[in-house]
Amino acid sequence: MAAADAFTSAPDSFSWFDIVDPDGAELDRLRVAFSMHPVTVEDTMHRRQRPKVELFDEYAYVVLRPLTLTTEPEVALQEHEVHVLAGREFIVTLRWTPEFPMQGVQARWNRHPDMRQAGYAIYVLLDEVVDDYLTAVEALEDEADDLEDLVFERDGEGDADTLQQRLFRLKRDTVVLRRSAMPLRQGIDLIQEDAAITTPAMAPYFRDVMDHVIRVVELADNVRDLLTSLLEVRVAQAANRLNEAMKSMTAWAGIVLVPTLIAGIYGMNFDHMPELSWQLGYPSALGLMAGSAVGLYVYFKRRGWL
Amino acid sequence: MAAADAFTSAPDSFSWFDIVDPDGAELDRLRVAFSMHPVTVEDTMHRRQRPKVELFDEYAYVVLRPLTLTTEPEVALQEHEVHVLAGREFIVTLRWTPEFPMQGVQARWNRHPDMRQAGYAIYVLLDEVVDDYLTAVEALEDEADDLEDLVFERDGEGDADTLQQRLFRLKRDTVVLRRSAMPLRQGIDLIQEDAAITTPAMAPYFRDVMDHVIRVVELADNVRDLLTSLLEVRVAQAANRLNEAMKSMTAWAGIVLVPTLIAGIYGMNFDHMPELSWQLGYPSALGLMAGSAVGLYVYFKRRGWL
Amino acid sequence: MAAADAFTSAPDSFSWFDIVDPDGAELDRLRVAFSMHPVTVEDTMHRRQRPKVELFDEYAYVVLRPLTLTTEPEVALQEHEVHVLAGREFIVTLRWTPEFPMQGVQARWNRHPDMRQAGYAIYVLLDEVVDDYLTAVEALEDEADDLEDLVFERDGEGDADTLQQRLFRLKRDTVVLRRSAMPLRQGIDLIQEDAAITTPAMAPYFRDVMDHVIRVVELADNVRDLLTSLLEVRVAQAANRLNEAMKSMTAWAGIVLVPTLIAGIYGMNFDHMPELSWQLGYPSALGLMAGSAVGLYVYFKRRGWL
Amino acid sequence: MAAADAFTSAPDSFSWFDIVDPDGAELDRLRVAFSMHPVTVEDTMHRRQRPKVELFDEYAYVVLRPLTLTTEPEVALQEHEVHVLAGREFIVTLRWTPEFPMQGVQARWNRHPDMRQAGYAIYVLLDEVVDDYLTAVEALEDEADDLEDLVFERDGEGDADTLQQRLFRLKRDTVVLRRSAMPLRQGIDLIQEDAAITTPAMAPYFRDVMDHVIRVVELADNVRDLLTSLLEVRVAQAANRLNEAMKSMTAWAGIVLVPTLIAGIYGMNFDHMPELSWQLGYPSALGLMAGSAVGLYVYFKRRGWL
Amino acid sequence: MAAADAFTSAPDSFSWFDIVDPDGAELDRLRVAFSMHPVTVEDTMHRRQRPKVELFDEYAYVVLRPLTLTTEPEVALQEHEVHVLAGREFIVTLRWTPEFPMQGVQARWNRHPDMRQAGYAIYVLLDEVVDDYLTAVEALEDEADDLEDLVFERDGEGDADTLQQRLFRLKRDTVVLRRSAMPLRQGIDLIQEDAAITTPAMAPYFRDVMDHVIRVVELADNVRDLLTSLLEVRVAQAANRLNEAMKSMTAWAGIVLVPTLIAGIYGMNFDHMPELSWQLGYPSALGLMAGSAVGLYVYFKRRGWL
Repeated sequence: MAAADAFTSAPDSFSWFDIVDPDGAELDRLRVAFSMHPVTVEDTMHRRQRPKVELFDEYAYVVLRPLTLTTEPEVALQEHEVHVLAGREFIVTLRWTPEFPMQGVQARWNRHPDMRQAGYAIYVLLDEVVDDYLTAVEALEDEADDLEDLVFERDGEGDADTLQQRLFRLKRDTVVLRRSAMPLRQGIDLIQEDAAITTPAMAPYFRDVMDHVIRVVELADNVRDLLTSLLEVRVAQAANRLNEAMKSMTAWAGIVLVPTLIAGIYGMNFDHMPELSWQLGYPSALGLMAGSAVGLYVYFKRRGWL
Repeated sequence: MAAADAFTSAPDSFSWFDIVDPDGAELDRLRVAFSMHPVTVEDTMHRRQRPKVELFDEYAYVVLRPLTLTTEPEVALQEHEVHVLAGREFIVTLRWTPEFPMQGVQARWNRHPDMRQAGYAIYVLLDEVVDDYLTAVEALEDEADDLEDLVFERDGEGDADTLQQRLFRLKRDTVVLRRSAMPLRQGIDLIQEDAAITTPAMAPYFRDVMDHVIRVVELADNVRDLLTSLLEVRVAQAANRLNEAMKSMTAWAGIVLVPTLIAGIYGMNFDHMPELSWQLGYPSALGLMAGSAVGLYVYFKRRGWL
Repeated sequence: MAAADAFTSAPDSFSWFDIVDPDGAELDRLRVAFSMHPVTVEDTMHRRQRPKVELFDEYAYVVLRPLTLTTEPEVALQEHEVHVLAGREFIVTLRWTPEFPMQGVQARWNRHPDMRQAGYAIYVLLDEVVDDYLTAVEALEDEADDLEDLVFERDGEGDADTLQQRLFRLKRDTVVLRRSAMPLRQGIDLIQEDAAITTPAMAPYFRDVMDHVIRVVELADNVRDLLTSLLEVRVAQAANRLNEAMKSMTAWAGIVLVPTLIAGIYGMNFDHMPELSWQLGYPSALGLMAGSAVGLYVYFKRRGWL
Repeated sequence: MAAADAFTSAPDSFSWFDIVDPDGAELDRLRVAFSMHPVTVEDTMHRRQRPKVELFDEYAYVVLRPLTLTTEPEVALQEHEVHVLAGREFIVTLRWTPEFPMQGVQARWNRHPDMRQAGYAIYVLLDEVVDDYLTAVEALEDEADDLEDLVFERDGEGDADTLQQRLFRLKRDTVVLRRSAMPLRQGIDLIQEDAAITTPAMAPYFRDVMDHVIRVVELADNVRDLLTSLLEVRVAQAANRLNEAMKSMTAWAGIVLVPTLIAGIYGMNFDHMPELSWQLGYPSALGLMAGSAVGLYVYFKRRGWL
Repeated sequence: MAAADAFTSAPDSFSWFDIVDPDGAELDRLRVAFSMHPVTVEDTMHRRQRPKVELFDEYAYVVLRPLTLTTEPEVALQEHEVHVLAGREFIVTLRWTPEFPMQGVQARWNRHPDMRQAGYAIYVLLDEVVDDYLTAVEALEDEADDLEDLVFERDGEGDADTLQQRLFRLKRDTVVLRRSAMPLRQGIDLIQEDAAITTPAMAPYFRDVMDHVIRVVELADNVRDLLTSLLEVRVAQAANRLNEAMKSMTAWAGIVLVPTLIAGIYGMNFDHMPELSWQLGYPSALGLMAGSAVGLYVYFKRRGWL
């Protein structure tokens, strides 16, 4: 397992083991080496765990669900899963494909050799994960602003269904983000209770991460409320536009049907219809038709139906 | 009652009695044998109890409402009901038709003869029930994903009412699932307070089940929120489609009514209508009609009304 | 007041006084006999009190708002009001027209002469009231199931407003039920604190009633959520049906207007219209009209607009 | 300031000062006489304070926002504001125009000279204010019942916008009422902690007022839920009615356009149209038109489109 | 840094440093001078922090998000950010462009030289910030009242989309305001726990600010609920108006199409149509058309369709 240890570069009393996509044999060795409780063993074998912190006698078990932004093929959230076993003299991180990138964590860990203890390791990891949440929630805010502009754009009717779908997808992403971040509030409280892995001096650090978690959750709630309002606005807008379409249809129907009625009148076969024998009867009738059409057009235009 | 005891295969100081569809006589014998409290007796005689844990001096009384997935005639949730009486030296499980399958529970129980105590029995049972909840909630998530695809499918208008009904049914299933799982949170806390049936060593196990219960509830909340959003999207979509239908109707009405007006004009009976005597009057009129229809078609096509 | 005492049939150290529609004089005698606090006196003189439990030095004051099902002229909830004064050696129940039927309570009370104490009396009363709530909530569930079937019935458009009204009335009944049952949770907790009227041996009984209260509230919440979803579904359905009506109208308009256009064409008065002098001109024109109508009908039928 | 003292009619150790629309000078004298804290002084100088109770060393400061019903020009809620300074030997009430009427309070205060202490004074004032809330919430319930009848009235379409507006105004009044009453729950708890102004014997009185506050809030919540449901019903109803209007329009269009088509057919100019020379051709054609119109009318009537 | 100190004009044991848009060097000097914790240093370097109070051994760190009203180009909320470091003998305020104006704070600070301590400084700052919130929330209430009038205005259909947008923007501003004020509730509680920066004598002041914060939050909730109701009303109104437009269209179609049918009838070519040879046939037909049109107009007018 020494090969898996990507972080601890010097002989040290505290070791960090990082394993990507552990197989059964590796998990088995871990189980024996760190006397893992059966329920922890069970949890490490299944994906899609809830973010949580569980304190055992020998170690703390932390499950994180980091989110990163991918840009290919379009901007989207990428879900990761990281499990952490933290004891007095070691920390083990388990990652699965798509693996959460830990370069930032490693760099900060190596920069402070004086703080090599599980509490600090967990803090650094949490801080990076929560910073990624903040990046993600800001991307969601940007998308929400774009959608808001589209909703209120005058000729924004172009592709109503696509807009609806983007609103929906964004709302779902917001829920994923919230669900990943929210349980950390309770988790961070729990970590600080474990004297074996953290010290009072770490308290301001964890309080700071906690504050960022709350900010992530609040911003996500914001985005969600905004999207809910936008969806409501969409419904009201659609009803307005239907109204306008209905009026415009009524107006155009009148403009075509009134001349049709006039034509119908002069198509009647009465023996005594003086206009029919007038020299200017036909142009007058055409003029009447045109006049009624123009008159209706002007009338409806003024009432704002066209 | 020995016949009903499906589990305890060896003479043992701890016994598990499992009874399916107990009749009055059996309940009566149970009542005497385990000195059941009158309210417990009352509860065992009625179906559709709430999931709960009640601690009595001599025993703990647990009501579970397991859910399993059936696939015949279609994928649906099957509700079960299991009552548990757990004392220091015995556990009784009462099941009713459709009976909750306990093979998995039995296998795990027999695999660990060293852990034969009521706390472990309840844990195994809870764990199996909650695992079934997880299976169920994942099936609900799959159905929700299918429905989402259907909602955003371009020509997904085919059977709007059926889609609505599936959305509604899924929402109802989600509520059933949530209501079955939710009360276990409080119940699991209560079980751990009863020193007679559980030991501190069981704590991590119960904490693990608790965590799974919370996950079930969170995932169910997720599905529900998603369905609520989908229903909102449906309303907005229906309004959009109505708009489109209205525009398309306006366009087609114009395409038919304008040539009708032209025909009406040349159907007028004026004595002096020079076009009528033209050699090419008729084809010209037909050409004018066709031209106006094509012109309107192109115009409306460009505006996106067709 | 002895005449009002419907329950205590034997000379006993504990007495139950039951008074229906007490007048001022009776309330006055009660006030003196049981040294009622001014605020209790005040409360007994006004109807539509909130369900509650108030502990005084000499007695506990309980207000209940039972609900029973009436079937005349239609199934509906009947609201009742019962006030209870419970002391160490007496219990007084005040009822008002429409009076809550207490035969069940009386029968259970007489069946257990060994348990004659205020705590048991309150338990029996609560249990009967809460059982009636369960009966009521099950009736509401049945009504909700009926409405669900009506909503998803294919030709269920028959009387949309009546359906809406039943949905609304049911929702209101659910709220009434919830409001009647909910305050009992706090009340039952309070009763158990009063050592003067109850004993620890009563605890499982009250816990059982509490469990039923919670079940009533949860089932009522269920019905309410279901109704909210049904109302949302109704809106989406109405929009769908409007869409369908619009399409069907467009289709029929086309089927009538295209032949009208053809008739208009052959009604033109051009001198040179070869078809007019054809021997089969007229039947051909009729055929063309019929053909276009049938063609459009088939076209729209295939697109699902008819 | 003796002139302002409207209540204390006899030389007494406890004094009640009541001032309407106090000016700067009066507030200044109060400040000195009762050693008011700067923040209390500040608060008494601004209107639209939140209802609250604040305990200071020398006095308790209570802000109330009573509501009364006015009937001119229409039934509406009238908001008032009353500030109370209550010490061991005095109580000061400040009122502003439109002043909250205190005759009821004064009468009750004078009726119980034995209970002259700040706790009782505050209780009487609270009780009157909360009774006015109950009167107000019952008026809102009546208005809600009226609106419900209007919503479900068959021909209730008369003035849809006015109905909408009444629903909206009522909802807003309900919110005002709730906001005025809600903070009193916390406030009443606080008053009882202050041994200087109240005694344990007052506890049942305050508990009774508290119970009424909760009832006001619950009834207001009820009205609000009912109004929300009514607004939802309105949307569904409007969609239904649109559907009906659409169907009725389709039916009438058919009834007019089919005879128009028949007239168009017999207006064609074919040389060989045998019907044209029939003696009864014209009446037959009229009969055909009438027959088709009647046939369509009967057909649509049966389908419920008319 | 002395230059940055805008407030402390006399040599004093307590100093207030105010820095606008601090650069890296200034933050560095601060860090050393006041032994700031690394997480505080980190926080001061990033904008858009959550409002919060964090207590450290040497100082309290307060983040505020003041809001002011701007009137150019239109009335809008301007967001600011202020960080405060408060110790036993100093207070540092950091502000960023657009800088929150502190003249009011400075004036009050200078007016009470006897109260120069961090607790009072924070109180004055909080009080000014919360007063600005109150001003802002009142401006939002005014805008909401305007929008309400527009919604219920008879001919208020003029610019539906703009109205929608104003409703949406106002709702968003309300959320911003609520999010800025809400965290202060917890923050003010925290400040009072820090004996190093505040004294019990400050308690009434902080309680007063707390009360104003709650009022801001309640008023903002009010505005939000009102806006939600207005959006619902808009949807119902749009549906009503669509209904009216549909009816008016049906009516006008009838008024034009019935005369068209009459003209069609007298355009038929039957040999035997007695009316055709009547002397008054043509004027009679015109009269019939006019009569039917007027009759329909009157009919629809009476039914309220026009």
